[in-house]
Amino acid sequence: MSAMMKAAVFVEPGRIEVVDKRIPDVGPNDALIRITTTTICGTDVHILKGEYPVAKGLTVGHEPVGVIEKLGSAVAGYKEGQRVIAGAICPDFNSYAAQDGAPSQDGSYLVAKGLCGCHGYKATAGWRFGNLIDGTQAEYVLVPDAVANLAPIPDGLTDEQVLMCPDIMSTGFKGAENANIRIGDTVVVFAQGPIGLCATAGARLLGATTIISVDGNDHRLEISRKMGADAVLNFRNCDVVAEVMKLTGGKGADSAIEALGTQGTFESALRVLKPGGTLSSLGVYSSDLTIPLSAFAAGLGDHRINTALCPGGKERMRRLMNVVASGRVDLGLLVTHQYKLERIVEAYELFAHQRDGVLKVAIKP
Amino acid sequence: MSAMMKAAVFVEPGRIEVVDKRIPDVGPNDALIRITTTTICGTDVHILKGEYPVAKGLTVGHEPVGVIEKLGSAVAGYKEGQRVIAGAICPDFNSYAAQDGAPSQDGSYLVAKGLCGCHGYKATAGWRFGNLIDGTQAEYVLVPDAVANLAPIPDGLTDEQVLMCPDIMSTGFKGAENANIRIGDTVVVFAQGPIGLCATAGARLLGATTIISVDGNDHRLEISRKMGADAVLNFRNCDVVAEVMKLTGGKGADSAIEALGTQGTFESALRVLKPGGTLSSLGVYSSDLTIPLSAFAAGLGDHRINTALCPGGKERMRRLMNVVASGRVDLGLLVTHQYKLERIVEAYELFAHQRDGVLKVAIKP
Amino acid sequence: MSAMMKAAVFVEPGRIEVVDKRIPDVGPNDALIRITTTTICGTDVHILKGEYPVAKGLTVGHEPVGVIEKLGSAVAGYKEGQRVIAGAICPDFNSYAAQDGAPSQDGSYLVAKGLCGCHGYKATAGWRFGNLIDGTQAEYVLVPDAVANLAPIPDGLTDEQVLMCPDIMSTGFKGAENANIRIGDTVVVFAQGPIGLCATAGARLLGATTIISVDGNDHRLEISRKMGADAVLNFRNCDVVAEVMKLTGGKGADSAIEALGTQGTFESALRVLKPGGTLSSLGVYSSDLTIPLSAFAAGLGDHRINTALCPGGKERMRRLMNVVASGRVDLGLLVTHQYKLERIVEAYELFAHQRDGVLKVAIKP
Amino acid sequence: MSAMMKAAVFVEPGRIEVVDKRIPDVGPNDALIRITTTTICGTDVHILKGEYPVAKGLTVGHEPVGVIEKLGSAVAGYKEGQRVIAGAICPDFNSYAAQDGAPSQDGSYLVAKGLCGCHGYKATAGWRFGNLIDGTQAEYVLVPDAVANLAPIPDGLTDEQVLMCPDIMSTGFKGAENANIRIGDTVVVFAQGPIGLCATAGARLLGATTIISVDGNDHRLEISRKMGADAVLNFRNCDVVAEVMKLTGGKGADSAIEALGTQGTFESALRVLKPGGTLSSLGVYSSDLTIPLSAFAAGLGDHRINTALCPGGKERMRRLMNVVASGRVDLGLLVTHQYKLERIVEAYELFAHQRDGVLKVAIKP
Repeated sequence: MSAMMKAAVFVEPGRIEVVDKRIPDVGPNDALIRITTTTICGTDVHILKGEYPVAKGLTVGHEPVGVIEKLGSAVAGYKEGQRVIAGAICPDFNSYAAQDGAPSQDGSYLVAKGLCGCHGYKATAGWRFGNLIDGTQAEYVLVPDAVANLAPIPDGLTDEQVLMCPDIMSTGFKGAENANIRIGDTVVVFAQGPIGLCATAGARLLGATTIISVDGNDHRLEISRKMGADAVLNFRNCDVVAEVMKLTGGKGADSAIEALGTQGTFESALRVLKPGGTLSSLGVYSSDLTIPLSAFAAGLGDHRINTALCPGGKERMRRLMNVVASGRVDLGLLVTHQYKLERIVEAYELFAHQRDGVLKVAIKP
Repeated sequence: MSAMMKAAVFVEPGRIEVVDKRIPDVGPNDALIRITTTTICGTDVHILKGEYPVAKGLTVGHEPVGVIEKLGSAVAGYKEGQRVIAGAICPDFNSYAAQDGAPSQDGSYLVAKGLCGCHGYKATAGWRFGNLIDGTQAEYVLVPDAVANLAPIPDGLTDEQVLMCPDIMSTGFKGAENANIRIGDTVVVFAQGPIGLCATAGARLLGATTIISVDGNDHRLEISRKMGADAVLNFRNCDVVAEVMKLTGGKGADSAIEALGTQGTFESALRVLKPGGTLSSLGVYSSDLTIPLSAFAAGLGDHRINTALCPGGKERMRRLMNVVASGRVDLGLLVTHQYKLERIVEAYELFAHQRDGVLKVAIKP
Repeated sequence: MSAMMKAAVFVEPGRIEVVDKRIPDVGPNDALIRITTTTICGTDVHILKGEYPVAKGLTVGHEPVGVIEKLGSAVAGYKEGQRVIAGAICPDFNSYAAQDGAPSQDGSYLVAKGLCGCHGYKATAGWRFGNLIDGTQAEYVLVPDAVANLAPIPDGLTDEQVLMCPDIMSTGFKGAENANIRIGDTVVVFAQGPIGLCATAGARLLGATTIISVDGNDHRLEISRKMGADAVLNFRNCDVVAEVMKLTGGKGADSAIEALGTQGTFESALRVLKPGGTLSSLGVYSSDLTIPLSAFAAGLGDHRINTALCPGGKERMRRLMNVVASGRVDLGLLVTHQYKLERIVEAYELFAHQRDGVLKVAIKP
Repeated sequence: MSAMMKAAVFVEPGRIEVVDKRIPDVGPNDALIRITTTTICGTDVHILKGEYPVAKGLTVGHEPVGVIEKLGSAVAGYKEGQRVIAGAICPDFNSYAAQDGAPSQDGSYLVAKGLCGCHGYKATAGWRFGNLIDGTQAEYVLVPDAVANLAPIPDGLTDEQVLMCPDIMSTGFKGAENANIRIGDTVVVFAQGPIGLCATAGARLLGATTIISVDGNDHRLEISRKMGADAVLNFRNCDVVAEVMKLTGGKGADSAIEALGTQGTFESALRVLKPGGTLSSLGVYSSDLTIPLSAFAAGLGDHRINTALCPGGKERMRRLMNVVASGRVDLGLLVTHQYKLERIVEAYELFAHQRDGVLKVAIKP
């Protein structure tokens, strides 16, 4: 194995560059993966812009598809050369948080490394790739807690077919899982970017029979129908809350899924709910949120608001790849462009400006 | 039966008066109850002040303890003369909302009576006494959907012992039930008025082993200890969030229960939570709420926010009276004063100003 | 309205006959429905054979599709002439059992009518049509607790499209709902009669991605594929348990649904489960069951066994008709034959002997 | 550290002996614990008798209380000299089974060690101490997956106070957690040995308000009252099912917990249930079980049967020790005798024959 590799690193706000970097050493519980395909996420764009701070020189990216190059001495059950993915979130499943039901929220890693003064959980601390440790937009990536996080790719699935599993699909489906969907439900999904589209597919998979998707882009609404929406609303052309009330005979939706992260979508998601309904929030917000008194029935509406961070771990990945293998959902539609790692700066440019109908970009080292 | 009765009615903002009123007729699914004890709730004070609008001349009050005077022709399974209570919320259990899991949120009653243009649910519409129909601060009250709502009082329990069941205990316990409590949890309860005290008792009953209660009144904190709190915090003397972090070793609380209805308590309840924790909200808010970005982990903290309206129905009442009969919880402590119905205006005065260490007042027609 | 109607009644073991009967009077909470379509269920065959005892002269059948002929004086929210269905199980939603989460299990009706010495619940007592009161294989049927149980048929749906909702679809879907299905699960469904086929469709609707159906009849297995099965096993040609282990890589199924009611299917359902898996049982058993020690991991396997009676009520029916209207599931396939009520004896003959590829028979008064 | 230690090993059916054994080497993810207190479990008696097969020469016992002697190279977050416990079940939380919600049922350990031909889960495979690897009735024990399984003992708690946490308390409480207990429930607990007593305490902790415990030993029933039973039934003096029906007004119990592992207790537990009730089974059965048709309502009773293996892991142990520290439950009552490790054969003798009012024996190396 060569000692050096190419990696896209954060240099300063506005600049991500491909540089040469040492291939990392492999600890007893780690695995080194040779990346064959990865992608760019909206969060990476926040990092690029400096809106989400990471260390200078850190390799960015958190969606690994690749081949096992080298296994740590304590990693049993895998073979070098095996095709695998790992979740965007790589939890420490030995942690208190994971055993307590919140693997994505574990901070024990930070505590152990002396990076955190806290004694227990820390929100989002399960997100390590491209955040706390070097990420996946590189020729190689080191997967920590490899026995918990490496998921073998079933025979017959291509890189592109499983590329959404580590983050977009896991997050979008969690949005549907958090929405308390029951057979026959009406679910409204706000925003039809890649995560919202996966939330729509997830709501369909879980038995909702009236799925209403909302966006301002007709092309995305069209794809939304292919992912499972029964009705689509372009908020530029209609009053979304009034339309949902009309479609539900004045009753309101059983659930709403927020997949953008703005006051507007959050508030509308609350306003379309029936009393007793659930708001499943996926968005990454960038400012305080307001809960309008009336939308909240003054606190007396038996409402639920659930938030989520993308679930990870090999069992989650196994299940999502099963869904792909079963043919229930086709996320191939979402991969609209492909770039070499060397030209990733151009890919960021395209993706950040949503040019050319881009949904997701496959990056190939 | 005499044709007339005494009843406390809403006259105009600032004025509730005891007047003479006709004893109502009994429809096929109704029951007429002779009230032996009732009480005043914080919501009644809002009505008195005109902050919550009700029809002029409406009898107020929603916590009935009494004796069956007369049963509707279709009401089977009860006897005249039987001692009963009914919930503050009297759901129509035949409604779509009730069959869908939200009995307190049913609007079918309003639709049937032509009071509502909506086609389905309406938040809080299950609350009828002293809101949509004549209430309990009177010599008699008519209980609608009597077969669903009349709950016989077990032998040996006094009026005072079951007086909290219709509202305060049902609401406070629901706050604990909505908090996803598991054995060994840390739960923080914000505000120790009657409902918060019941939430504390409920958290104890459900297996929380570190219960921290918060209030600004030392006397209420003292009673809170008797209801089950392991630690008490007077927010006037300490930084509550910092104290909870200290008590939990930096981890945060598993759950927080909000029992007041203000921005401050709501926000603090969110700030004390661990990632993955649950905020159970009971308060009746009077203005928009703000969710601070940091307290919400930007939407990535796997948080839950659950709101509730007081559950009603005879099965709920049966269970709560079982709790009382078992001796697990003693709510007798909460009934600090007693007034005749004729002097209810004085009782409102005392209660609204929290004079004389008042918690709850028993009203006797 | 004519005072007499045709009705199929139980005469004695082996004999069901069409006779003339008085059209019943309508009490305050009842509704009289003119039946336009009904069907025969496996349970009716048990009644015919005398294996399940009912009163002589009772009208049989429990799946009503029809038109409201007359409403009771206290029944609001419906119009005469409206097309409706009602569940096979007509719960009293005012009962303790219903408020406690088990509407199908309510015995208060029996208590109120003096038919039962018990004080509380009685298993299956929510099943009234063709069991405790006159059923639906007649020109008219009286629906008790009409406000809770009448469900309007959405415009555009035919009788045949909603004919499965009252029983087969509600039961089969409940089997899937009781199986704790999560996205990506493997579910094995034992027996592919009408209920098993609906369980297969329900498992698909709820996100199972490997559905394995089992039967001894290749024709039914073929239909099973159309209802959503990914793999089918004819138990006459293979060792079902061994095949499931092979298909799951030795892991076992996440859930198994039993839809027949025999020791063999129950036992196999247990044997295919992974530790931690769920057995959802739908069958009506006719003798004691044996749980083999090894299949049960000596009681240490974290297994779940859930049984169910068909859920009823207007909200359940509304949801199921939504599923039909959404086009997610097409149960039209199941209605293979049609008979006039006058010739229902022939229909029983055909159905009881599973002649001519029969799945379900539409009966038209 | 001396190279040799004393350990109680299985020699042959009927013989457990204290022998000299090498202190094991410590792998990167292991921890070596110096045992200060351990105990004997009913399962150990099965092993002694040869009813549950283990390898000859294996150290028995699975309830460790001790001090960290040496940590593996990859074990962070602990200090040598720290007082700790570990669960009787030491799951591999990195496994598919654990990530799938069934940590006690993981077989990946077996697969990795080549001990199992299966590919996935194996029932009870999370139980390693004294079953698959050397156990705790010794001077030292090696804890595998130490980061997941070592739980520090809070200051101020004695060995005896936490001795029940690893198994008896975790199992008994799981029985209560699996019983779907809600506030106001009636729960019947069958058998009041150590696990049944803990189930009684757990049911109390979770809000059951009528707890009925059943045993044939009046002394144990007396202790049962101290652990939280409201009523006790000696099955030698009464018809338990009839008594429960009387105590519940003919309705039946909401839940029943089986804590012995016999046909009689299992069957009675089913017979006392209301329709819709839950049977939580804890017993280790030694032969096939029969489900009587009537007790099971022919499969139509909306019943639940849940089985469990003792939950393990550091978070579980932390929660249980919190319960002890809170003073909610006092399990000190259960430790009735104390023996030196050298005299453990006598302790087995006493315990196996339930002599001298023994409940649990503390063993001190």
